[in-house]
Amino acid sequence: MRISELAHAAKVPLPTVKYYQREGLLPPGRAVNARESQYGEEHLSRLRVVRVLVTGLGLTIAQVRHVLDVLDGPQRDPYQAMGEATKNLPLTAPASQTSTPDDDVAMVRALGFTHIIDPQLAGQLGNALRWAAESGVSVTPELLGAYLDATRQIARADFEVIPRTNSRESVSFAVVGTVVMEPVLLALRRLAHEELAQEMEDDEG
Amino acid sequence: MRISELAHAAKVPLPTVKYYQREGLLPPGRAVNARESQYGEEHLSRLRVVRVLVTGLGLTIAQVRHVLDVLDGPQRDPYQAMGEATKNLPLTAPASQTSTPDDDVAMVRALGFTHIIDPQLAGQLGNALRWAAESGVSVTPELLGAYLDATRQIARADFEVIPRTNSRESVSFAVVGTVVMEPVLLALRRLAHEELAQEMEDDEG
Repeated sequence: MRISELAHAAKVPLPTVKYYQREGLLPPGRAVNARESQYGEEHLSRLRVVRVLVTGLGLTIAQVRHVLDVLDGPQRDPYQAMGEATKNLPLTAPASQTSTPDDDVAMVRALGFTHIIDPQLAGQLGNALRWAAESGVSVTPELLGAYLDATRQIARADFEVIPRTNSRESVSFAVVGTVVMEPVLLALRRLAHEELAQEMEDDEG
Repeated sequence: MRISELAHAAKVPLPTVKYYQREGLLPPGRAVNARESQYGEEHLSRLRVVRVLVTGLGLTIAQVRHVLDVLDGPQRDPYQAMGEATKNLPLTAPASQTSTPDDDVAMVRALGFTHIIDPQLAGQLGNALRWAAESGVSVTPELLGAYLDATRQIARADFEVIPRTNSRESVSFAVVGTVVMEPVLLALRRLAHEELAQEMEDDEG
């Protein structure tokens, strides 16, 4: 396909595709003449990943380049590559999203959150899952189920440390704690990944 | 204390303290004469929270103001306030930190990650826990233990979906999956909080 077709297929504006190319995030196409190059499926999947990392997760160009370097680098063990990709990455955040379709509320209800009626919160999860899917990662029901179990355990533990009074102190503790524990959670997941990768290496070694 | 003493105690530069005050993030002190105001412990703890949210987690001033509005608002139930504080907040990220002292490696080893030798990853957790402590949230051993158990379950589930080959596809799946699942994890924790808050309300209603 031509570069304009590539841009259309990945839902990235053409000038942005050219910018990614100048920044080395997208390899050149196969030149067919002096003015035109052809692009294949590997360009499309790469461009989709770059789009998710930049637009979905809000990474800088330098951070995206680091992730791609790990993808393209000589390191071939996927478990080691995971740690390599994230260890120089700040704990990431998606850009704020606005779409909150009813479908997301239905999806969240189907996950078992029957109490939940906040469409904004449902939209956050919907967006996060759509960005994952668009990057080519399939979130299986088993994987999502494991995340669900684990986050419910965490939420119960969070609630247990909050003083059960309606004082200003307990509100402050709950609100600030919710926000500041997010980086702790992400850091622990990365440590657990590294632990498992090391154990597998030891088993094989 | 004077504003210069307040700034020193909270480790925030004086011009930054004045900026926070102009932005309404810090209430005025008690005027003692035309040129001087006095500040108390409540100003210090507020300033520490603002510092963690801005410097530690990288929130914008508008996002910090939203969190503080929830803290100061009429809503007095801490569990409802948690959802209120985060629902308009993008899933947060700490600013990248550079300090990676040996103490953090020792701390991570004491948590049971005996395999881990990456000081940068240990430093990420250390920083996240220090920011939590500086904001006045005490991370108890029980809470940290619950987070540990849950993140190890998540890491095992992550590893199970990665194809056990050293192909380029499995590396891509592992690396991209690690990054894109972070927002999913944070969104699920918020949903689990809301679920628990609703259940408590139903029990009391």
